[in-house]
Amino acid sequence: MTRADLAADVQIDDGATVGYEYTPDAEPAVVGRDSQIRDGTTVYCDVELGSGFVTGHDALVREHTTVGDDVVLGTKAVLDGHVTVGSDVSIQTGVYVPPGSTVGDRVFLGPNAVLTNDAYPLRVETDLEGAVLGDDVSVGANATILPGVTIGEGSFVAAGAVVTEDVPPQRLAVGVPAEIRPLPDELTGGNVLA
Amino acid sequence: MTRADLAADVQIDDGATVGYEYTPDAEPAVVGRDSQIRDGTTVYCDVELGSGFVTGHDALVREHTTVGDDVVLGTKAVLDGHVTVGSDVSIQTGVYVPPGSTVGDRVFLGPNAVLTNDAYPLRVETDLEGAVLGDDVSVGANATILPGVTIGEGSFVAAGAVVTEDVPPQRLAVGVPAEIRPLPDELTGGNVLA
Amino acid sequence: MTRADLAADVQIDDGATVGYEYTPDAEPAVVGRDSQIRDGTTVYCDVELGSGFVTGHDALVREHTTVGDDVVLGTKAVLDGHVTVGSDVSIQTGVYVPPGSTVGDRVFLGPNAVLTNDAYPLRVETDLEGAVLGDDVSVGANATILPGVTIGEGSFVAAGAVVTEDVPPQRLAVGVPAEIRPLPDELTGGNVLA
Repeated sequence: MTRADLAADVQIDDGATVGYEYTPDAEPAVVGRDSQIRDGTTVYCDVELGSGFVTGHDALVREHTTVGDDVVLGTKAVLDGHVTVGSDVSIQTGVYVPPGSTVGDRVFLGPNAVLTNDAYPLRVETDLEGAVLGDDVSVGANATILPGVTIGEGSFVAAGAVVTEDVPPQRLAVGVPAEIRPLPDELTGGNVLA
Repeated sequence: MTRADLAADVQIDDGATVGYEYTPDAEPAVVGRDSQIRDGTTVYCDVELGSGFVTGHDALVREHTTVGDDVVLGTKAVLDGHVTVGSDVSIQTGVYVPPGSTVGDRVFLGPNAVLTNDAYPLRVETDLEGAVLGDDVSVGANATILPGVTIGEGSFVAAGAVVTEDVPPQRLAVGVPAEIRPLPDELTGGNVLA
Repeated sequence: MTRADLAADVQIDDGATVGYEYTPDAEPAVVGRDSQIRDGTTVYCDVELGSGFVTGHDALVREHTTVGDDVVLGTKAVLDGHVTVGSDVSIQTGVYVPPGSTVGDRVFLGPNAVLTNDAYPLRVETDLEGAVLGDDVSVGANATILPGVTIGEGSFVAAGAVVTEDVPPQRLAVGVPAEIRPLPDELTGGNVLA
């Protein structure tokens, strides 16, 4: 069963599921106007999506997730529940965002980038702690952000980097583990979603 | 066509496939009690799953795979056939486990972690050789385990590490290529699946 | 709606979509003989696939993509449109190939490997520039190829490597960022798809 409140001009492919009823008392999924949900994508109940939300195929948005306006969620990307995403955000193919993550406005997450929320999985009992990505952050392909890490506004995470500590605003994080460097002149400033 | 032997209290979403008949003479998939298979997930014939098997969406379990009890197989995770998995194992979103892999009890595999089985793909003719993960092993997000590598009991593989050689028990493997270090005091001991 | 021109002996699972009509005036998808498209896989219109094209589950081939003969496209692998792939190519589970990429003959792409096409996503306006992989290239699991990089014929990219500059023919690229080394003797020569 599915339940959803759809605004005007929402296009949902036949093979997509919007309002997956994971529990009987869940609230309907809310989808803003001018949105497009492609085949194979699943959006749970208890999700609020802004206007202009566009997905690829086989993406997943689980419960208690809130997304702003004009967000692209790529093919096979996963917002795994209890996630907050801003507006004008581009989340590319295969990205994983775990519960407790916060993503600002005008953020880019490259293909197969992974955010995490558990520092010592199965070993030490800790509170799960999602990463926090400030506005205008760009994260490269296959990069990994460790639990509880904050990436400051306008910073860049290079492809394949493993970010183990907080990154101040307007910095470049590169390598494994990531070194924090000044941002090259040509990369200062904010992001613009084309 | 699908064929499956389901124990009591197995819940299968309408859009899931259990017992994908990849060849006409395959044996039905066996699913233990109290299991839950979510939309988009495919389980092949010639698979035996223990009790309490729970999947996310779009996961895949191919033929000649055996899984113990109380295993979680995350969204888009793949057990690509001829795989053995123990009990109380947590396999997160996007993990890839190739043919010939062996995974012990109480193992954690983080998001987009990859095990491999072919050292020189397409180039040198070698026997495919899967990795062996001992009991209580935790593998971080986006980590890669090379073919034939054994990870000893209780060892930790850090996020983004590329493990190119065997890791003894109770060690930490970190970096590219992974260095093997003593396990920090707070990480000694075994895993507990919450 | 779907539209496709299928050669002889093409087997398409019920849950696969061949000829996804992303725009009304698109040309039908063309699929060569002896091909097999498994459940959950989507092939767009304006795609030409050679003979012997075999997919796993939930793979995606978007528009304006051309693929040669005897290509394997693994489970959840994505050819994201405007991609050219040669013959006798093996693309493993979870691989991402962005628009503008060119992949030669007898190429291997390991699980979760990522090609990219945008050096400064959302930040600096540049032309998207895909990677070019020459014939007989092998790319390891979880490796990342940066935009516009050319990998020369017969070169090997190690698992987890991040390739930031061109790689000449018959070299080994290893590490983050990748160092370019001579190819070990046992790896010289071309690839053979088993």
